[in-house]
Amino acid sequence: MFGLMQDRPLLVSSLIEYAASIHGDTEVVSRLADGIHRSSWRTIHTRAKQLAKALLALGVKPGDRVATLAWNSHRHLELYYAVSGIGAVLHTVNPRLFPEQLTYIINHAEDSLLLLDAMFLPLVSKLRPHLSTVKQFVLLADEAATTPAREQLPGLLSYETLVAGQDAEFVWPVFDENTAASLCYTSGTTGNPKGVLYSHRSTLLHALASCMKDILALSSRECVLLIVPMFHANGWGVPYSAAMAGAKLVFPGAALDGASVCELLRGEGCTLSMGVPTVWLGMLAHLEKHPEARPTQLRRGLIGGSAAARSLIARLESELSMEVIHLWGMTEMSPVGTGALRPRRWEAMTSDQQLDLKVKQGRVMWGVEMKIVDDNGRELPHDGKAFGLVKVRGPWIAKSYFKAEGGTIIDEDGFFSTGDVATIDSEGFMQITDRAKDVIKSGGEWISSIDLENAALAHPAVQEAAVIGIAHPTWQERPLLLAQLKPGLTATRDELMEVLTQKVAKWWLPDEILFVSELPHTATGKLNKLKLRELYRDHKLPT
Amino acid sequence: MFGLMQDRPLLVSSLIEYAASIHGDTEVVSRLADGIHRSSWRTIHTRAKQLAKALLALGVKPGDRVATLAWNSHRHLELYYAVSGIGAVLHTVNPRLFPEQLTYIINHAEDSLLLLDAMFLPLVSKLRPHLSTVKQFVLLADEAATTPAREQLPGLLSYETLVAGQDAEFVWPVFDENTAASLCYTSGTTGNPKGVLYSHRSTLLHALASCMKDILALSSRECVLLIVPMFHANGWGVPYSAAMAGAKLVFPGAALDGASVCELLRGEGCTLSMGVPTVWLGMLAHLEKHPEARPTQLRRGLIGGSAAARSLIARLESELSMEVIHLWGMTEMSPVGTGALRPRRWEAMTSDQQLDLKVKQGRVMWGVEMKIVDDNGRELPHDGKAFGLVKVRGPWIAKSYFKAEGGTIIDEDGFFSTGDVATIDSEGFMQITDRAKDVIKSGGEWISSIDLENAALAHPAVQEAAVIGIAHPTWQERPLLLAQLKPGLTATRDELMEVLTQKVAKWWLPDEILFVSELPHTATGKLNKLKLRELYRDHKLPT
Repeated sequence: MFGLMQDRPLLVSSLIEYAASIHGDTEVVSRLADGIHRSSWRTIHTRAKQLAKALLALGVKPGDRVATLAWNSHRHLELYYAVSGIGAVLHTVNPRLFPEQLTYIINHAEDSLLLLDAMFLPLVSKLRPHLSTVKQFVLLADEAATTPAREQLPGLLSYETLVAGQDAEFVWPVFDENTAASLCYTSGTTGNPKGVLYSHRSTLLHALASCMKDILALSSRECVLLIVPMFHANGWGVPYSAAMAGAKLVFPGAALDGASVCELLRGEGCTLSMGVPTVWLGMLAHLEKHPEARPTQLRRGLIGGSAAARSLIARLESELSMEVIHLWGMTEMSPVGTGALRPRRWEAMTSDQQLDLKVKQGRVMWGVEMKIVDDNGRELPHDGKAFGLVKVRGPWIAKSYFKAEGGTIIDEDGFFSTGDVATIDSEGFMQITDRAKDVIKSGGEWISSIDLENAALAHPAVQEAAVIGIAHPTWQERPLLLAQLKPGLTATRDELMEVLTQKVAKWWLPDEILFVSELPHTATGKLNKLKLRELYRDHKLPT
Repeated sequence: MFGLMQDRPLLVSSLIEYAASIHGDTEVVSRLADGIHRSSWRTIHTRAKQLAKALLALGVKPGDRVATLAWNSHRHLELYYAVSGIGAVLHTVNPRLFPEQLTYIINHAEDSLLLLDAMFLPLVSKLRPHLSTVKQFVLLADEAATTPAREQLPGLLSYETLVAGQDAEFVWPVFDENTAASLCYTSGTTGNPKGVLYSHRSTLLHALASCMKDILALSSRECVLLIVPMFHANGWGVPYSAAMAGAKLVFPGAALDGASVCELLRGEGCTLSMGVPTVWLGMLAHLEKHPEARPTQLRRGLIGGSAAARSLIARLESELSMEVIHLWGMTEMSPVGTGALRPRRWEAMTSDQQLDLKVKQGRVMWGVEMKIVDDNGRELPHDGKAFGLVKVRGPWIAKSYFKAEGGTIIDEDGFFSTGDVATIDSEGFMQITDRAKDVIKSGGEWISSIDLENAALAHPAVQEAAVIGIAHPTWQERPLLLAQLKPGLTATRDELMEVLTQKVAKWWLPDEILFVSELPHTATGKLNKLKLRELYRDHKLPT
């Protein structure tokens, strides 16, 4: 027997319609290259409707992919609503990728239209000969700025001219909520980037769940500075959830340095912001020299993208009197999966105990089921000690990549494998201990490379440490520790082994320690373990 | 093109699974007839699974209706999850209805099983001969309490015996999210009660949306006293949303008097409670005499069910240092439609201006579209002045009643007619001015009976006033004011007319004022305008 409730599909257009009708005067503020731009939810809606008509006039059809190469701004927000609103797919491209990756992604997505910020003109004019599907390019600027740019990109259209060419008499079409709304590629360390194709349904459910008090806690009186780029998993869904809650939304454009961020936070009275650890570190560094730049109304900071260090959380909370909420997720998860979700005993805890919980990745919110499994797919206990591969299931988690790249990515029970290795305690707090590809598999048990590296850092002479698994005839793999010492300091293998012995189980101790003058890093500054594994592929451990 | 996200249906069972797995230790506390009972989300889940197996063993099948006649308690909560979890339909019956209505409702729903609190034994034994579909009766008690009760209801089963007879090895079935989950009858003033049949989807979406910070703002650190009965539109969805947020949940049982409520609020450290105005008035009355009973941790109070008076809101906020959130909705809306949703200018307003907004019914939350229309279905402006029939649309609003009673209830655009008449201002704040059936239709314009009644109350001698429409040859209807004076006081027609003249437009003035010794009321204490219209059907207005 079916219920007798109205059959209203969950559509992205409902968000902007709601924000415009109930929170129409609430501001949407953008820092553009030439200064601060002020808009409102009402105006965003009006212009999104004009833009929708312009896109239709350009021949964009339901299902077509429309690409953006853009920083966070009101125009990018209008595109979020206009493109998905007409049933086309917004493909937010990460401009930080290498040109070859950009070409691959845009061609793979078969984008028909590409809209770009002016600063990406040189990049796009280089890419253009290799882009096989893009029929038109649009500059996110007015006609005056577009005219000279046509020397670099002939045929370039002006965004503002397109918008101005249409009126706002437009009714958003109603269609199946499982229709694709947006597309975002995730670049693993191996293979080509893979596209995650979000639906209207997954987008709305994620926005609703992430508005909860224990996660974003958005409301009509919050003012959000969205530092997370809108090309990173839909800016953690905030362009949607802010509309749903009627919050004031502030976009930093390309200026993500500490000074610019502090100025915007302070000037707009932002109460909440979200970004990766680097951005928060930049803010703290700026405030050390310019305490007068302190954002006085900032109450909460959300950190995700990579793990926030204990020291970063502690500094933000003490120096800025703000609450830090540590989130974890990934592009395949829309992206939020876990958040602070403080337990009821919180108030009875010491600040140090609270910090112990804050550095963890948090607990799943409703809608995300999580389990940890061993090599054989067996579920492991939630005892805070056993660590296994994290698998997740839920209505805003991917079931396959675009064009089925990478084949089947969910198991027979429908769980997606995150590639993270973690423990989960009895209260559900998850702590990532490693990436699955970095964990050392020794005699059927797992050794965390990150735990070993952190243990080695306890030696005062160690600047950086990397642990990788080396093939072993008996144990399958055994750990090799590579240590880079601080300039002018020394350490011996035995000293280091002594330090490790105090921190990890005996069978975790590396079979060999090598001192190196430099460790390789990726473009984003992470240890390049893939490179290390290649370098030491044929290394023989002492027996 | 469809998105590539996981196809996970929104099911009620996901809520209790989540609460048990992440917030398992969080308490669920009930006041029973014999004292306080303590449980937890983990135990509720375990027992709900045992109960689910017991229901299946009793022959309950997907789609079957299972009725409850019960106050709020952990057992009622277990039934919420067990019945809907197996795909059957939980029919929460309001024990305050007249016996004939109860018989009608239970037979109309074709309930196969009826579970009841011990205090309803005399009632149910009286109803039993008239209940044509109920095959079994279950007492929400243990065997010891059930044995003597079998004298009143032969064949009665014990709830605790049923639960104890099963283990908890049970996997909730997965089915279509549009499957019916629960059924609640709403008794209009005319015709038979009509059933609203909620789906799993509508229940989950309503729970998600009502968790938002501007509505319930539930979190894992809140403690909620659910005073609203679980037979009133699923207790405003709190049995679901509290699980979703992992909040501590406290049930008052049958004891809704001020003393009992204060004791529970204080003893359990409740931070939040929700109920109709009467309950809050009872609390205030108790605290006047017993200031030591003040619930010290109570921070927020949600009021709905009927409009909260300005004086009640002001008193609660000043005397209890709590925030009052005024909600509006109805059984057909799951039930929450609007909430406080304070505007950004809130902090700049005086407390009197804030109160002006708090007494309004609030603004729609995302997911509810609202319009006001005139007699011809034309949409009226949102100017805070024009008042019209309130129509709503959204995924947790009814599209038809059970068994299609009352025929079509949505218009061609899918909007449901609430029967309320209201204004909406430019910010979206809605204020109810009348019930549609009570509004006086004069020459194509509407006159609010409630506004006229309130205006008449400004005369110090008027105890109560009622305004109804009387048929008029030229104007269709014209207002008749019936006034009951305070004992020992006097007033004249002219005096009253003079008072009204200062408050309402000239064409609103009643064509006649009659002084009466008593005004008729309904069982729930409201003015019985249906009765008045019958009494004065043939009344001739002076010309």
